[in-house]
Parts: sequence; structure tokens; C-alpha cells
Amino acid sequence: MKAAVLREYRAPLSLEDRPEPACPPDGVVLRVLACGVCRSDWHGWTGEHPRVKPGSVGGHEFCGEVVEAGPQSGWTTGDVLVAPFLLGCGHCPACRSGVEHTCPDMIYPGLGTDGAFAEYVAVPRGHNLHRLPESLDPVTAAGLGCRVMTAWHGLTDRAALVPGEWLVVHGAGGVGLAAVIVGRAMGARVVAVDVVPEKLDFARAHGAEAVVDARDADAVAQVREITGGGAHVSVEAAGIEPTLNASIATLRPLGRHVQCGMPIGHTARMQIDLNGVFMKNLALYG
Amino acid sequence: MKAAVLREYRAPLSLEDRPEPACPPDGVVLRVLACGVCRSDWHGWTGEHPRVKPGSVGGHEFCGEVVEAGPQSGWTTGDVLVAPFLLGCGHCPACRSGVEHTCPDMIYPGLGTDGAFAEYVAVPRGHNLHRLPESLDPVTAAGLGCRVMTAWHGLTDRAALVPGEWLVVHGAGGVGLAAVIVGRAMGARVVAVDVVPEKLDFARAHGAEAVVDARDADAVAQVREITGGGAHVSVEAAGIEPTLNASIATLRPLGRHVQCGMPIGHTARMQIDLNGVFMKNLALYG
Amino acid sequence: MKAAVLREYRAPLSLEDRPEPACPPDGVVLRVLACGVCRSDWHGWTGEHPRVKPGSVGGHEFCGEVVEAGPQSGWTTGDVLVAPFLLGCGHCPACRSGVEHTCPDMIYPGLGTDGAFAEYVAVPRGHNLHRLPESLDPVTAAGLGCRVMTAWHGLTDRAALVPGEWLVVHGAGGVGLAAVIVGRAMGARVVAVDVVPEKLDFARAHGAEAVVDARDADAVAQVREITGGGAHVSVEAAGIEPTLNASIATLRPLGRHVQCGMPIGHTARMQIDLNGVFMKNLALYG
Amino acid sequence: MKAAVLREYRAPLSLEDRPEPACPPDGVVLRVLACGVCRSDWHGWTGEHPRVKPGSVGGHEFCGEVVEAGPQSGWTTGDVLVAPFLLGCGHCPACRSGVEHTCPDMIYPGLGTDGAFAEYVAVPRGHNLHRLPESLDPVTAAGLGCRVMTAWHGLTDRAALVPGEWLVVHGAGGVGLAAVIVGRAMGARVVAVDVVPEKLDFARAHGAEAVVDARDADAVAQVREITGGGAHVSVEAAGIEPTLNASIATLRPLGRHVQCGMPIGHTARMQIDLNGVFMKNLALYG
Ligand SMILES: [Zn+2]
Ligand SMILES: [Zn+2]
Ligand SMILES: [Zn+2]
Ligand SMILES: [Zn+2]
Ligand SMILES: [Zn+2]
Ligand SMILES: [Zn+2]
Ligand SMILES: [Zn+2]
Ligand SMILES: [Zn+2]
Ligand SMILES: [Zn+2]
Ligand SMILES: [Zn+2]
Repeated sequence: MKAAVLREYRAPLSLEDRPEPACPPDGVVLRVLACGVCRSDWHGWTGEHPRVKPGSVGGHEFCGEVVEAGPQSGWTTGDVLVAPFLLGCGHCPACRSGVEHTCPDMIYPGLGTDGAFAEYVAVPRGHNLHRLPESLDPVTAAGLGCRVMTAWHGLTDRAALVPGEWLVVHGAGGVGLAAVIVGRAMGARVVAVDVVPEKLDFARAHGAEAVVDARDADAVAQVREITGGGAHVSVEAAGIEPTLNASIATLRPLGRHVQCGMPIGHTARMQIDLNGVFMKNLALYG
Repeated sequence: MKAAVLREYRAPLSLEDRPEPACPPDGVVLRVLACGVCRSDWHGWTGEHPRVKPGSVGGHEFCGEVVEAGPQSGWTTGDVLVAPFLLGCGHCPACRSGVEHTCPDMIYPGLGTDGAFAEYVAVPRGHNLHRLPESLDPVTAAGLGCRVMTAWHGLTDRAALVPGEWLVVHGAGGVGLAAVIVGRAMGARVVAVDVVPEKLDFARAHGAEAVVDARDADAVAQVREITGGGAHVSVEAAGIEPTLNASIATLRPLGRHVQCGMPIGHTARMQIDLNGVFMKNLALYG
Repeated sequence: MKAAVLREYRAPLSLEDRPEPACPPDGVVLRVLACGVCRSDWHGWTGEHPRVKPGSVGGHEFCGEVVEAGPQSGWTTGDVLVAPFLLGCGHCPACRSGVEHTCPDMIYPGLGTDGAFAEYVAVPRGHNLHRLPESLDPVTAAGLGCRVMTAWHGLTDRAALVPGEWLVVHGAGGVGLAAVIVGRAMGARVVAVDVVPEKLDFARAHGAEAVVDARDADAVAQVREITGGGAHVSVEAAGIEPTLNASIATLRPLGRHVQCGMPIGHTARMQIDLNGVFMKNLALYG
Repeated sequence: MKAAVLREYRAPLSLEDRPEPACPPDGVVLRVLACGVCRSDWHGWTGEHPRVKPGSVGGHEFCGEVVEAGPQSGWTTGDVLVAPFLLGCGHCPACRSGVEHTCPDMIYPGLGTDGAFAEYVAVPRGHNLHRLPESLDPVTAAGLGCRVMTAWHGLTDRAALVPGEWLVVHGAGGVGLAAVIVGRAMGARVVAVDVVPEKLDFARAHGAEAVVDARDADAVAQVREITGGGAHVSVEAAGIEPTLNASIATLRPLGRHVQCGMPIGHTARMQIDLNGVFMKNLALYG
């Protein structure tokens, strides 16, 4: 099969022939129908992601059709499935108590094992997979595996966004746009912040009631003006220090910040305005 | 009356004669029965607290007996009262919805107006005061106004500590010891961390099941070992960068950090391990 | 002024001339712009409401324009305001902690004092009132004071409805339709149940994805089929025993029931399927 | 082996010789070290429990030593284990999301399959079992499997009891006493209500700060007096109508009722004071 292989950090991927993957007993081999590209792929490509090494195949938000199904997988050839980007083991205390995203024995296709930048991908631990409803096409569905579920989890389980609240999204890329769409569907009023005018237009077209160019000197003041004193919930979707501090600055007292952008490599440690967090009684969710 | 006045930052307070304070119409004048000393007083004394200026009288966790009561205060001469360190206005949306600690029009006796390092203190907004139950002596009660209520609020409303969980307290001073005592009363298992052996002994005598000397090279590892992989809840009670990062390091996945120590002045911004916050799905509460 | 006075239970209201009401010092006199009619009015009219006596004027969900403002009201002549149906005192512990709906010293215009079935209505305790935004006309706004806020409070603060969940609404009258609209705006999928086809059509036009005629012998089974095993949240909006038990029967395990219909008079006590509540681990919110 | 077999409803159990149970591949055979007797056993004995038929062996809260371990059980001969009274399947959506108590494919030893009123008991689905810590003796531990975990789950996950709140427990039998002990350990102030003076003495000795004899005409008023207007949380631990209504009557506004007593057979439906639930904004948890 064809696969896009990382041979050298920060160099174009190499399109190569590879053997098709073997089918895990508890999983499936999927013919890839769609696969997203995410900032975590970029972190792997730059060499900052600890689990991504030369020779590996990326691609972690995908959906595909089962071409081979392991005997304990629970699936059948022909099923069209979507995968989350993290595959919990299914039997540890974390997996048994509904917090499988903290499983200590996680498998990450595309960020540790070979992923879906290829014609076929092997996915073990089939209990993590879900069948696509007929109303959902594969290209749209692929985003569910990483960006949408990250935004959803952040806005529901973490920030507990309530309808009518103001949500500000810092960074209108993949997960940021997902947060705009999910936030709007949850009944929030959404402000998007970015440095690229086209992204802001796109965010507005997908549910943002207002947009702010982060390059404006008074960008924070604009958000505070629009939201009547600061947003209730803020999503950081870039994973960098200026955006995180902008998020803290644009929240009102008791506001909730959700860190959706991944702090990694040279951004693993950040200098943040902890006085702002303290004085405004904010909550920061990782 | 006698009062201990701040004349110069980082110099001994000056014991002076002052006129007794006037009684506010909605408040009282208290004869001070007891007043605590807190790290916020120290921040004022060093010049790092923005509201504390030379000429002021500190003292913000106190209790006293009413010697004069304003007509709209709701109190009577002779009542023995305790005050919280922040006096909400009582009629703004924050005060009306149970989050008076975010009142935009707060009055802080001892950290902005004259406080209780004096024989008498004026306290406006009498609806914030509470009568002492007979079972509580003034010296014990004084701590309720700042350290105990900070620890209580952090462990209940913010971290939602559940009995049986592991609580680690970084810094066994005023608010830290209060967190040890409150956490134990809530049914948690408590580990105290500090650099002063006498404080650790005191913490153990007040409910800590284990103590760790933060000067040990493997202090974090010790806490993780004792708590079986990290605490569920961590209280930072020093307001400095190393303690904050130790708190992040000693939490297990999904752990909750409560920032009780005030980040101010040269510690207003801190460089924190955001990768740890993100990868372990922590919550940080300001 | 003209007012519709209750002279005899279950008899037409009497249209009479009355003196205009005096203005309370802490409140206003409103010229009534709109006033809803609610099942609580009906309970008063039948004699089942303990606070409603002959000689009184009903009308508890209204909005109006200030024609006279008390000195401590905070309002000015000409302000257009909407009132909640319960006026908390503003200074008791309940009112100070954000649960003013449990104030022990509540005033209920129209259900205890004279209400808005009249040209003018006096409203004390002006801090409970809110200015109408320009985008909201008085007729629409009037519903906010009882039916919409009841539905909102039930679905947010009580049931904590999450987007994507199934909501079943039993009774498509005032508060029921409000629950359909609010639930839909919160991102829920809504099923409406009633015995009147016109109401079901109206509910469908206002956001219900499916409707069920409660007169069908298999109405409960229909709801369970539509919702894939029972709804996550159910609203009872009639205040009667069959609807309450239908609500219990149409919930899935861990479902949450919200009692929006008022149990009063001959429906004050109801025989309910407590085994269903127990076996399915339901929550019932009053 | 010896086993106590139910031959006839409401007749003494029959002590019989039975073959030792076969070991399930995913479970164990335990030599019974201790087994509690619970009201559910009584419901089975009276014929009111739908899954308990003549010929069966009861006993559902027990602990024992492994004498045979299935190859997929995860346990070894000699392990001393405690079992919950309900054994979830471990792989359905309920079991995978931390609400295994709502598993649609539950197995109940002693209330459906043969239980621990015998020398040996077979327990399938070994992932539900837990090893006894050395500090816990088998007789004490046996109670964990039903009464203690029911009380714990009710007071933590359901009622979210907060330290300092008043808890009233109606019925000082097995689960009621467990609620007294757990509530006290959580920092609540506890009132126990029962009709048997010895039980009330026992409750007081185990943490109840006050006790009330339910036979007193003013029992409800006594509880309201003791708790300053009603308890914050109430546990019903009898499963009957008078106790449920007493629970509703003894709660303050916004109080939370937990139904720990099982409504079954002739108590499956109960007539309850729904007006009280509604007017006081109570929550009832099944
Ligand atoms: Zn991704
Ligand atoms: Zn796992
Ligand atoms: Zn202080
Ligand atoms: Zn205020
Ligand atoms: Zn400092
Ligand atoms: Zn009140
Ligand atoms: Zn109404
Ligand atoms: Zn009626
Ligand atoms: Zn039992
Ligand atoms: Zn299951």
C-alpha cells in the first residue's frame, strides 16, 4: 500500500510502498476513507512530539471501512467506523470508570504506532470504535476523532458551558473552529480571535457572533467590550504562551479556561499571569 | 487608641496613638479581641501589595466586640462578631448570586482601609459579619476570617474534595495548616509538605497522615509513593513558583490544584509546567 | 383603573374600577403592557391555591412601563421592565446566596398581592426587576416572568441538560412549550407528549423533533422507541399523577425528572412508581 | 457443602448438603468468611423479590477466600476478596462509562443466582471483586458489598453531602447505620430516626449527634428543631411510605432525599407529598 512516511523532521513526507498492516485480534484493519491533519501531526513533524520518530506514519483522526476484522473485535468486514485518537485498554480502573482518556496503557495510532496517512491502518482495541451513522459522510466524520471530541469534551465535561454564556475561542484552526461550532450548538454566544482574517471570516460563517484580530493592540479590550466584561468560558486552541495569557485576560471573574492547544516541546512550560488567575477566581482545565 | 502603623516598607511597625474610628451607618466599631497575621500582611509590609501604603494599619482576620453600632448595621453593642477579610457590597449581581467574593466594589479592612492591628476597628457593611457561637473563643475564631475560609472555600466549592481522597498541602503555614485541618475533617487523607521540620511536626499533630520535607531531592516522588500515584487534590499555600510546580507534579491524572497562596508582586507571573497540566488533565483553581 | 377581579371561585372574573395602586418606596408602579395567563392563575380561580382569595386580582407574569418609581427602587419613570413571579426580600441568607427562589419572606404579585390583570400594578422590591432589551417586545417578554424562567431553571440548574441528550416534555401548554423551546436552544433533541393534536403540532413547529399523543395505549413505548431506550431528561408540565408516572416510565436509567407542573389541592399528594425511580436510579427535582 | 436453602416463603431456611459450585472461567469460588443479612434477603424470603424463587440460596454481601480461580479471573487461590452485590458485565456502555450499577446485563449473587448463605459461593466476572486490605477483618468487610456502598454512593455521588450539613437518617437498620457512620466520617452532623430505642442508642454510639423516636407525635418537628429548619440531606432506609414522607417533611428548602430503602412488592408504589417536594425545591434520588 501507499503510505506517507516521516523520514526527516521538517522535511516533506516520503510517499512509499509498504506492506499492508496485520490485523490485531481485538481490532480491525480499515481502508482509510478520510484523515484529518492536526497540529499534533505538525508537532511530530517538527520533532517535538516525544512518541513520533523517523520511519513512522502519522494520521490520527480518521475514518474507514473494515477490510479485515479480528475475532475479538466485535466488527465485521464492510462496517464504516470512526476512531478516537486515543485507544484505552478497556479494563483498567480508568477505562472502567468512564475516564478512559487517562488510561495509563493508551495506544495512539499516528502518534506512536502507524496511523492513517496511508491506504490502510490497523486499529487494535475495537471497543473504542464507533459506527458512522448514515447521515454523516466520512470526510466530516474524520474530524470527530480528534478536533471535535477535544472541543466537545472541553466545553461539556470540563468547562460545563451553559447556554447564553459568552465563549471566546483563541485560535481559529482545527480545534478552534470545532469549539466555535460546538459552542454555538450548545447555545453560547461566540467570539473568535485569530491573526488571519480569512480564518476569522470562516469562523464567523460557522457561528461566531463576533471576531477580533489578535494583532490589534486592544484585542483583549475588544473582547471584554463585546462580552460585557469578559467571557464566561475561553478556549485556547494554539498551545502557545501569548494565547494562553490572552485567554486569562479575556475572562470575567469565575471564568473557565480550557487548554485545547497542546503545550509541548519549547512550549511545555509557559510563563502565565497567575495573579490574574487568582484575583479573578478562574479555573484552568488541562 | 493604640495602633500598629506601617510607616516604612520592611521596617518594624510603629506603635502610635490614633483617634478611634468613626462608626459607619451600615456597620460597627469593634473592640479587637484577636487578630491574625497572614502572608498578605507580609506582602503589604514588603510593598508588594498594591493597596497597602505607608500610614496604613493592617490586620484583616479578626474578631471583636461591638462598641458602637450604626443604625443600618443590624447589630447591637456587646455583640461579639467575626468578619471575613472581604466585605461585599451586598446588592450587586455578584453579591446577589452567592459569589460575593467577586464583588467589583469590595472593601478590604487591613488591606486598603485601616484594619485590626489596633484597639478598635471600623467595619462597614455589617451584613458580612457573623456572631460568634459560644463554643468558639475569639483567638480561634479570628482565623475564620481569612485562612480557614480560604481553605474551606478552596476544598469545598472549588476542588470538591471527596472523603477518602488524598490531599497534599504545599506549605504548612497559616492557610496550609487550615487546609490540613479542614481536609482531615472532610474525610480526606492528608500529606503536608514544607521545608521546616517544626511545621511538619505541627501539621502531623493536626491531622496530616504523612509529611514530606520539600528539601529532599525526591520529595515529589515521596508524595507520589505515599498517595499511590499522586494526590487527588493539591493546595498551594505559599504563592511561589517552585511550590506551584511541585503541586502540579504531585497530582495524579484528573487532579485538582487550588491556588491558596497569593501570586503578587515579583511572583505575579510564574513559569509553570503546562505540559503536565495538559497531559494529566488537571484543573487549576484560582 | 380597570382591573379583572376574582369575586367567586370558578366564575367569570369581574371587570371593575379600582383605585390605582400606591407606589412602594423600594419599588415601582407599572402600566401593564402585557400579562400571561398560567395554570397557577387557574388554580387560584378554582380555589385550590392557598394564597388566592375572593377580591383579589391575579396576573403574575407581566411586563410594563414605570409610571411611578419609589426613591429606593433604582428605576426611573419610562423604564420598561419585566418581573419574575416571585420577589425575594434581597437580604436574607437565601437571597444573599443566589437561591432567592427559596426566600422565606417572598412576595408574589398576582398570587397573594394584587397582580397585573389590571391597567396598573405595584411591584415592591425593585431589585428583582429587569429592563427589557430593545430586541424583545413586551408580549414575548411577559412569558419570561414565569413559564420561561421555570423551564430554564429546571433544565439548567436542576436537570443540567447536556446538548445531544433526549428531552421529553409531558404537557405542551405554557411551561411545556417553554421547555420545548429552551431545550431545543440548549442542543437537546425534544419529544413532546400531550393529548391535544393542535398542541402537538404547535410543539413540533417550535422545536420538537417528535410528538406523541398521550391517549395512545403505547405512548410510553413510543417515547422509549424514539429515544432509544428512554429520555435523559423529562419535564412534567401538567401537575397531575398520570403525567408524573408517564415521566418516570419514559426515562432511561440515571434519567432526571423535573416537576414544573404544580402539585396543589387535590393533586398535592400523588401515588408514584417509586420502584421505577429506585431501579432506574432516577433523580426527581421539585 | 452446607447451604441455607429457601424452600418456602416466610418459612425457616433449610440447612442442606449441596455440591460445591463450579468455577466460572472469568471468576472464582470463594470459601465464605462472612456474609451479611439484609432487607433484600427479607424481601426474597417473603416472596416479594421477583428474582428470588424457592430452591435458591441467598446471601449477597459477603467476603471470602479464593479456593479456585478461573483462568480469566485475574485472581489466585488464597486471595481474600470482597464482592459488590451487583456484578456488571464490564464491557457494555454503562460498565465502560463508570455507571456499572446500571448495566443491563447484571448478575446478582444471592438475589438471582446462588449466594453466600453457604460454605462456598461462585462469583463470575472477577473484575468486580476487590482484595481486602490487611487492616480490615472479613466480618467488617462483608458489609461493604451492600449496605456501606449503598450509603456511600447515596451520600457522595447522589446527594453530594458537604461537611457541616445536617443529615437525617430515617431507619437505623443495616443501610441506615451505614449512612450514620459514613455521613459522620464525611463531616456531617447526623440525626437518626427510628421506632426502636435500642437502635437509636446504637446509632448514637456510632456517630449520631441526636436521635428521635419516630413514634413521637412531633417527631418531624423535633428533627426540624434540632437541624435549625430541616436537614440538608435525608436518607430513607426502610423502603416504606411513612418514612419517605417523613423524609420529605424533615428536609429544608433545596434539601436532597436519597432513597436507600428498596420500594418493592406492596411498597412499589407510594403516595407521596409532591407539594412538599415542589414547594421546597427538593431533589429525590433513587
Ligand atoms: Zn489531533
Ligand atoms: Zn485503560
Ligand atoms: Zn489573610
Ligand atoms: Zn457586591
Ligand atoms: Zn513577594
Ligand atoms: Zn430573602
Ligand atoms: Zn405562572
Ligand atoms: Zn387542581
Ligand atoms: Zn443488601
Ligand atoms: Zn455492563
